Amino acid sequence: MAEALARLEVDDLQQSLREIQVLLAKPERSSALRARLDALHAADIAYILEALPLEERLAVWNLVKADRDGEILLEVSEAVRESLIASMDSAELVAAAETLQADELADIAADLPPAVMEDVVQSLPAQERERLRAALSYPEGSVGSLMDFDHVAVREDVTLEAATRFLRRLDELPDHTDQLFVVDRVQRLKGSLPLARLIVSDLHLGVAGVMVRDSMKFYAQDSAEDAASAFERYDLVSAPVVDANDTLIGRLTVNALVDYIRQRNAESRLAEAGLREEEDVFAPVLESFKNRWAWLAINLVTAFIASRVIGLFEGSIERLVALAALMPIVAGVGGNSGNQTITMIVRALALGQIQGGYWRALLRKEIGLALLNGVIWGCLLGAVAYTLYGNVALGGVMALAMVLTLVLAAVMGVAIPWLRSRFGRDPAVGSSVLITACTDSGGFFIFLGLATLFLV
Amino acid sequence: MAEALARLEVDDLQQSLREIQVLLAKPERSSALRARLDALHAADIAYILEALPLEERLAVWNLVKADRDGEILLEVSEAVRESLIASMDSAELVAAAETLQADELADIAADLPPAVMEDVVQSLPAQERERLRAALSYPEGSVGSLMDFDHVAVREDVTLEAATRFLRRLDELPDHTDQLFVVDRVQRLKGSLPLARLIVSDLHLGVAGVMVRDSMKFYAQDSAEDAASAFERYDLVSAPVVDANDTLIGRLTVNALVDYIRQRNAESRLAEAGLREEEDVFAPVLESFKNRWAWLAINLVTAFIASRVIGLFEGSIERLVALAALMPIVAGVGGNSGNQTITMIVRALALGQIQGGYWRALLRKEIGLALLNGVIWGCLLGAVAYTLYGNVALGGVMALAMVLTLVLAAVMGVAIPWLRSRFGRDPAVGSSVLITACTDSGGFFIFLGLATLFLV
Repeated sequence: MAEALARLEVDDLQQSLREIQVLLAKPERSSALRARLDALHAADIAYILEALPLEERLAVWNLVKADRDGEILLEVSEAVRESLIASMDSAELVAAAETLQADELADIAADLPPAVMEDVVQSLPAQERERLRAALSYPEGSVGSLMDFDHVAVREDVTLEAATRFLRRLDELPDHTDQLFVVDRVQRLKGSLPLARLIVSDLHLGVAGVMVRDSMKFYAQDSAEDAASAFERYDLVSAPVVDANDTLIGRLTVNALVDYIRQRNAESRLAEAGLREEEDVFAPVLESFKNRWAWLAINLVTAFIASRVIGLFEGSIERLVALAALMPIVAGVGGNSGNQTITMIVRALALGQIQGGYWRALLRKEIGLALLNGVIWGCLLGAVAYTLYGNVALGGVMALAMVLTLVLAAVMGVAIPWLRSRFGRDPAVGSSVLITACTDSGGFFIFLGLATLFLV
Repeated sequence: MAEALARLEVDDLQQSLREIQVLLAKPERSSALRARLDALHAADIAYILEALPLEERLAVWNLVKADRDGEILLEVSEAVRESLIASMDSAELVAAAETLQADELADIAADLPPAVMEDVVQSLPAQERERLRAALSYPEGSVGSLMDFDHVAVREDVTLEAATRFLRRLDELPDHTDQLFVVDRVQRLKGSLPLARLIVSDLHLGVAGVMVRDSMKFYAQDSAEDAASAFERYDLVSAPVVDANDTLIGRLTVNALVDYIRQRNAESRLAEAGLREEEDVFAPVLESFKNRWAWLAINLVTAFIASRVIGLFEGSIERLVALAALMPIVAGVGGNSGNQTITMIVRALALGQIQGGYWRALLRKEIGLALLNGVIWGCLLGAVAYTLYGNVALGGVMALAMVLTLVLAAVMGVAIPWLRSRFGRDPAVGSSVLITACTDSGGFFIFLGLATLFLV
């Protein structure tokens, strides 16, 4: 039972990590290290494995009791899981996988070698096998892929007393049981019975009279994103998952959704910086290269395009070299401003705050803001350019270019997420790269074009 | 009771929003609109208010029943809350605030006019006033600022039967009651009694025999960040909050922490893009300007520095104008690569994955990766430069500059978060601006410097 293992606050956890590092350096103390690990919660061992470089990580992993391998593999990040699985042979993997429940197994199935999965599936009892098949059949990001099968269901036509007697026969209720699901005789969901209500109610009443009828339920094919939003809005702890016939098939818990949100947040954040997936900090150079090269290549292409735009105006730069020094300011400030706009809009879109009719109002506001910023910063930069190079016309061109580039940034900052959401794409992915590409090339073109028209 | 209001999935919520927009356009149907709003959950009305431009938002707000104002103000974002509060007079605000509990009141206290807060405090019963004072005394980001007072405590020296009888006298248990807190006669925390365990246990047993003794507890001054991490690691739903003497003073729930995490995530994400705080999408231009100008100004300064670096080499550019066209590629790819490094490290730091001794290993890895990337992309770009300008030496300089700039990006990408965390600063804030400033100025300097040495 979980309570036998102490739960640690972050400070204590980092203290544990340091002690384990000390023990690792002394091979003769491996039995002390083993005892230390046995006393730790699986989630804490996972934390420690994540924080150790590969060699130390595998040393610790080999000291962990084999019967805990499964739950720990479940807790570590995908990148670290791969490194651990690579160090295990088939027999160890099968043994670890067999300690897991169907929904947990589904979570790590993709990382296990196919032969191991086959062995594990063979060894499962029929009901678990069916559940595993079901869990694997739902696409990533669906409610079905996040649900578990740890719910407790009671029939609507019994008394609370009978329900309580039934519960007593279970040794302990599963984690996160804040409510029982109420079903009819063919397992169709009828409502829910919160434990907090069961406990304060007269046991002679019937379940049907005490249960909550319009409790929130989800379909297995619902999007996990929408479910997370509903859990947040209504402060849910658990909710039933049903199929198209309203038959109860599983349960969604707040913790599964918290993990999901954290994971999604991390991924989109990494994607914005040009990392394809979560990276093991201590991954070998080649692994990291694979994770990062694609976005660098895209960046190279956009930088090349911007460079060719400058190439168009080489004649002007030759005649007035100050242009070369000033042009990155225009492009840089435009990029920053465009990123502000697009970040705010992508976020508002994700929260459902922008509906069809309001795009135009939004565009007007952003253009207004760009004009205001353009006049303020443009005049300032124009003055700086004049001070540096003593050329009034250059100052004027600088100011005008700033205004136009900021308007371009505002228009693209609204247009890119609008277009992407219209065509059903995720407006967040690569938004920063796209807007920067526009403001770089656009900013260079506007500034150098104006300079060519008015100065040289 | 909450269950009287239907709970909506996101699709239905957006449907509601559209219907409300239609009703808004027809002033004669305001009673229909009012009825529509009355049937919605407070969190859903908050969602709708967030999605409406100011004028429509206030029209809806005026139709909402006054006795729901408090809970809705609690649900909306800070930016929208300000717009709603600005439209209310003192009497309305006092009435709204008086519907809230002490911990809820503490959450919006900062947005209420001081005179209103004074009136509200006067009207509170002594215990609530004391709780409000306590809740306001804890700094933002502490467990104390997130806790509520909705816990149910039982004495350790009673039987489960007596405890159950006590619970029955409460009409319904507070939301998120998954466990009762067990205290001694002076309210010192002794353990917890999960409802799931209470329900399956023999009622003749004593609380002390059934309770969980080493359940996780938090001190009011603990950091909310660490508490969130513990909730996630151990899949907690609620936990007791105690003071230095172990006296039970409140309760922390998973939903308070989910809100906190979401809020922090949003803020740091917005900060990365240069927005100071969450912005109302429909905020007036001037409000938005205030939110965004500071980072634009910082960006302007860093862009200006980069521009002066280029200014140092104006002579070289004049003699070989191709340099002007090629230099943004070097700086741009360097910036992208530096952002990849810093994002990964900031994230690993936040997850506690990087401990003291491993910075050196990390630096070695990132430099190795930079060399690999530098050779690959440097050769490619060198070849492109040669093709475009037919100048072998220029191609060589381009390749070498690429390698050196990527190494610089790697070193700074590790050094910036290392330094910031050493000096106790949040390594995330402004990380992107700092690294881009380094790679821009550094990239220009390296490329133009090498060109001046070898080409002109």
